[in-house]
Amino acid sequence: MSNRVVSPVVRRRPLGRRKRREEVRAGRGRGRGRGRWEGGAGGEGRGRAAGDPPAGLARVYPPGLRSLAGTSGTCGGTALARPQVASLWPEAHTCGGPCAVKGLRPALCFREASCRDFVRLSNPHLATMKEDVLYHFSLSTGTHDFPAMFGDVKFVCVGGSPSRMKAFIQYVAVELGLDVPGADYPNICVGTDRYAMFKVGPVLSVSHGMGIPSIAIMLHELIKLLYHARCSGVTIIRIGTSGGIGLEPGSVVITRQAVDPCFKPEFEQVVLGKRVVRSTHLDEPLMEELAQCSADLGEFPTVVGNTMCTLDFYEGQGRLDGALCSYAEKDKREYLNAAHAAGVRNIEMESSVFAAMCNACGLRAAVVCVTLLNRLEGDQISSPHEVLVEYQQRPQRLVGHFIKKRLSAA
Amino acid sequence: MSNRVVSPVVRRRPLGRRKRREEVRAGRGRGRGRGRWEGGAGGEGRGRAAGDPPAGLARVYPPGLRSLAGTSGTCGGTALARPQVASLWPEAHTCGGPCAVKGLRPALCFREASCRDFVRLSNPHLATMKEDVLYHFSLSTGTHDFPAMFGDVKFVCVGGSPSRMKAFIQYVAVELGLDVPGADYPNICVGTDRYAMFKVGPVLSVSHGMGIPSIAIMLHELIKLLYHARCSGVTIIRIGTSGGIGLEPGSVVITRQAVDPCFKPEFEQVVLGKRVVRSTHLDEPLMEELAQCSADLGEFPTVVGNTMCTLDFYEGQGRLDGALCSYAEKDKREYLNAAHAAGVRNIEMESSVFAAMCNACGLRAAVVCVTLLNRLEGDQISSPHEVLVEYQQRPQRLVGHFIKKRLSAA
Repeated sequence: MSNRVVSPVVRRRPLGRRKRREEVRAGRGRGRGRGRWEGGAGGEGRGRAAGDPPAGLARVYPPGLRSLAGTSGTCGGTALARPQVASLWPEAHTCGGPCAVKGLRPALCFREASCRDFVRLSNPHLATMKEDVLYHFSLSTGTHDFPAMFGDVKFVCVGGSPSRMKAFIQYVAVELGLDVPGADYPNICVGTDRYAMFKVGPVLSVSHGMGIPSIAIMLHELIKLLYHARCSGVTIIRIGTSGGIGLEPGSVVITRQAVDPCFKPEFEQVVLGKRVVRSTHLDEPLMEELAQCSADLGEFPTVVGNTMCTLDFYEGQGRLDGALCSYAEKDKREYLNAAHAAGVRNIEMESSVFAAMCNACGLRAAVVCVTLLNRLEGDQISSPHEVLVEYQQRPQRLVGHFIKKRLSAA
Repeated sequence: MSNRVVSPVVRRRPLGRRKRREEVRAGRGRGRGRGRWEGGAGGEGRGRAAGDPPAGLARVYPPGLRSLAGTSGTCGGTALARPQVASLWPEAHTCGGPCAVKGLRPALCFREASCRDFVRLSNPHLATMKEDVLYHFSLSTGTHDFPAMFGDVKFVCVGGSPSRMKAFIQYVAVELGLDVPGADYPNICVGTDRYAMFKVGPVLSVSHGMGIPSIAIMLHELIKLLYHARCSGVTIIRIGTSGGIGLEPGSVVITRQAVDPCFKPEFEQVVLGKRVVRSTHLDEPLMEELAQCSADLGEFPTVVGNTMCTLDFYEGQGRLDGALCSYAEKDKREYLNAAHAAGVRNIEMESSVFAAMCNACGLRAAVVCVTLLNRLEGDQISSPHEVLVEYQQRPQRLVGHFIKKRLSAA
């Protein structure tokens, strides 16, 4: 198994200008192989900045761009350091929006959308990869045509359960008038049972399993998929289930802030053995748009509130009914009351990393979860099956209406 | 949805001695409803110890036991505090092993196995529950006969993928001579797609998804299932996939210690907003027995080494190919080399909480994972599908041999 990151594409002679133009037109200079190094052996040179070529190699630039020197600036109103420019490249130089990245010729900006609309990566290393294997999706840029398969995606909905995400795509297909009687929606990730993915028109529906690590793996690969597919203007919404705090079961919560178990709007992660904290900011206009959609429907109680994200369903959420429990009923009550006082209206297990990753990659994101019980009254989810099924359809109906409304207004 | 924990079974008059005896004979005093409070309303009294009844209520004890007063001591060589005795009860008073719990009549100790052999819970609150809904398994003590369904289980094997755990039960059925031509092994958790569970003879095979939170939910409910089923002498083994460090791909690692991303044999969890650290001790004799089984087979390279457990597959494991990456190739190399120097031979995402929870509940536990790549050489899992499938069968073959050998020696 070779290291795809440090092994360069080795070419002995520089490509001619015409050859390079053909590469860009054919999409190879954009969709794959961009930022390749020519000639010599791979390896990291000493004393060079991130985004620079290894010693003895020269970057293959598209026409009109000779160097990344000085390519810091702002793009879509966001300040960009040089490694970020390298990871955005060539999207950064092809935008027609409020792009002010120094060192890029204005003549190269021909797209109408702003840079902010493109899904961006926050990883300069990917530019050096020939092929990207999305292992947990069983998809690869080497075997699948991502722009053809996913280039039109504008809405991504994610949720824990594979069957619920299949039910969602069937529901949305009917809502959008895209359903064909007898049509099936095959699982795109048929080569694995880690995740399931379904698509109809501009809507992608993906399962993510339970918990921060499981959704994080899915999001890394989903964001790369959208990037490789050159998607722009993507909105992503998590539709899930949760435990409510002080709400009638069946209420829907649109997340204002995803908070950690200490009620802070942060996501803490260990990277190379060190703690890193990221913001869990979510898109406020999107949150308000979704609240309006629920008001339009008027079918179920909906609130905007904070969502606490935990790493455990039992002790981590103050339950008394796990295999382990080291605290008393009154400790649990005090904790849940403190959470309510901090604006927490529901508890689930994915929202913080979802917000942090989407935020870092320029995706407008929202979290819409139904509450299956009121945690101030109990711990066990023991409502009848048909009641729980109807509850779980509520975020789907809200988000289905939102997509339909957005597309009608376009 | 009522709170099963704080709502007592309300009975206006004390039960007579004969009625209580009938309850015990019918199993209700043992499998369910034990430790119930009689009469009055629920709620936590002030100033009382954990395990005591709420104010105004009296515990319904089985014949021969009038009080939990003084019921601390040792059981199976383990020191027990009173809340632990309450959670072990009635198993604690029915063992014939080295049980020295004060206040329990010796006449009540009639089982031959030692207390240590019974799956124990570390939660005194469960004793007050009439019914236990294992929501993520879609099973309940109120609707399923756990002792009849699972009482003979001696080996539990868990792994991430549902299809792999089904393949394992089919393999084990053939190995143990329990396979019937044309027989199917239906998913016991058919009412949900969160987890899948299969059984043949004394072997239970359960999927757990990806990451610490996902396996933790499964383990809470699995341990309660084994407890409600009154299982004893259970061995539990995680069979999974991992990234190797300095090993040939396809090598199998039997975990000596599950360590965190700072290489410490600890599992840190946030409980009611506070950090709690638990030991990740694994059963050493079991580890050695498994190593001997691999030597018996002689089919693939196997090592005993430390396993690093992370909350993230990309940045958390020092990969350069995620959607986000904020460090350089040399930082990654330094980190992986430090892990290798600390005895880490593979990285996965479940072993620490698996070890911590099994340890706390008296389950002999081991982790056996195959390595799909050598992380010192790369990040992407890009081996051909058929090669990866064969790698994934290696822990199954090892553990299948172990079970067969154990049963032959019994």
